[in-house]
Amino acid sequence: MSLRFTIEELSDYVEEIFPNLKEDFTILDITEKSSIVRLKTHNKHLRPGNTVSGPSIFSLIDFSAYVAVLAQVGNEILAVTTNCSIGFMRKPSGEADLIANCEILKFGKILIVADVKVFSVITKEPVAKATITYSLTTTSQN
Amino acid sequence: MSLRFTIEELSDYVEEIFPNLKEDFTILDITEKSSIVRLKTHNKHLRPGNTVSGPSIFSLIDFSAYVAVLAQVGNEILAVTTNCSIGFMRKPSGEADLIANCEILKFGKILIVADVKVFSVITKEPVAKATITYSLTTTSQN
Amino acid sequence: MSLRFTIEELSDYVEEIFPNLKEDFTILDITEKSSIVRLKTHNKHLRPGNTVSGPSIFSLIDFSAYVAVLAQVGNEILAVTTNCSIGFMRKPSGEADLIANCEILKFGKILIVADVKVFSVITKEPVAKATITYSLTTTSQN
Amino acid sequence: MSLRFTIEELSDYVEEIFPNLKEDFTILDITEKSSIVRLKTHNKHLRPGNTVSGPSIFSLIDFSAYVAVLAQVGNEILAVTTNCSIGFMRKPSGEADLIANCEILKFGKILIVADVKVFSVITKEPVAKATITYSLTTTSQN
Repeated sequence: MSLRFTIEELSDYVEEIFPNLKEDFTILDITEKSSIVRLKTHNKHLRPGNTVSGPSIFSLIDFSAYVAVLAQVGNEILAVTTNCSIGFMRKPSGEADLIANCEILKFGKILIVADVKVFSVITKEPVAKATITYSLTTTSQN
Repeated sequence: MSLRFTIEELSDYVEEIFPNLKEDFTILDITEKSSIVRLKTHNKHLRPGNTVSGPSIFSLIDFSAYVAVLAQVGNEILAVTTNCSIGFMRKPSGEADLIANCEILKFGKILIVADVKVFSVITKEPVAKATITYSLTTTSQN
Repeated sequence: MSLRFTIEELSDYVEEIFPNLKEDFTILDITEKSSIVRLKTHNKHLRPGNTVSGPSIFSLIDFSAYVAVLAQVGNEILAVTTNCSIGFMRKPSGEADLIANCEILKFGKILIVADVKVFSVITKEPVAKATITYSLTTTSQN
Repeated sequence: MSLRFTIEELSDYVEEIFPNLKEDFTILDITEKSSIVRLKTHNKHLRPGNTVSGPSIFSLIDFSAYVAVLAQVGNEILAVTTNCSIGFMRKPSGEADLIANCEILKFGKILIVADVKVFSVITKEPVAKATITYSLTTTSQN
């Protein structure tokens, strides 16, 4: 399968359908099996203790998998998150952006399974780790 | 164990430490084993298709478990989310608030496990279902 | 949807296709939305410390969900476990059988999501808690 | 941290405490951050359709993480599985052994989080993928 979007096209499409996400995320890389996405950490992402909130981390994980899926299936297909399991391992500093490395483990006709590792740009050890499942559908059949 | 906070005290404490969450959530009930929390659905929680976003649902799940834990352990103890597994089952309407029913399944000295079911106020069938684990620590020992 | 099998028919069918499971499990109840299954604890299920092993608990969870699905979809449809998230909360005594209460949360055309709680017959507090997803397929399309 | 056991010592210790697991598993490699374990596929691991059963795959995942933990903490510490989330991606052939690659993502004082990928020895694509959490305790404190 070849990619349906370049990074620029994908960024434009995402901005069009999710205008409020543009200020949060930058798509750094897309391949047939992976994506890399940066969360631009703002005040709204923070929790007391100057750390990035769990919902912000979830949002980054979900977005990185969504664009990896979208880049392959195109925008006629509806991709819906059906399952997400996250391990939170370290509290990231609120001073630094986060990077999600998403790797697609299975690309089935109906189910897509991806693995996402989240890092802070200022540390090497992972902040969080998720397995996320998307289901594909052309209608609301799932 | 008896509760360390009334609903009012808990709401005030949460507002103090997480001021930006007050407009999002209302704590409806707290017992020794459970909580009920409402997400007041705003535009910022929505996704195209007029549905509530995954990160907003995650945020509701996490918050409902957090207040259930806090009501019992008090605020000297640090409770940190270590694991969350969510099944997304139906897309909720963006026109309606969501309700999280959180039930604590295990209250250990170190680990707390809770089950959270999320409903839309206008339907009976569950929107999402999560198991979430918190670890307790007085220092950064976990 | 009405049930495609009685408990007896389901037990017979399971014995026919999984002959080695018969000595492990007894199906106690089946409804359109639930199942109750007993694990008859043997030596082979035990771990040091006289507790039931994790794989045995996983096996009970998976089996309880499988029979609940099978009772509704019949045996022409292939139901495959795609996801399972388990929280282990207490170590059950190896002296007692375990009971799984499986509740189906979503019965979609493609995905089925079930919640399973596991108890020891001699205690009230849950031993483990799982969310498990099955995908349905008439071919190997998933 | 240096390893507390060689592969041989670890294999002997595991055989001593879990004698019935010896015929199932071979420990192929242990480092400070990882383990590689082989499941020697027998008839007892199979399901109709000549595939390896879910409980057998769970068992391999759990064992690979357990030995990785044990190699570092030694046997005075009790390591207990508290959480396991598995995505099943492809049905492995019952004709071939399975390999688990376990990578430790976090080694905390209380919680250890590991990532496990399972492959069939005859294919390249992953069969299953898990995130598993262990808690450490010298007593039954968790």
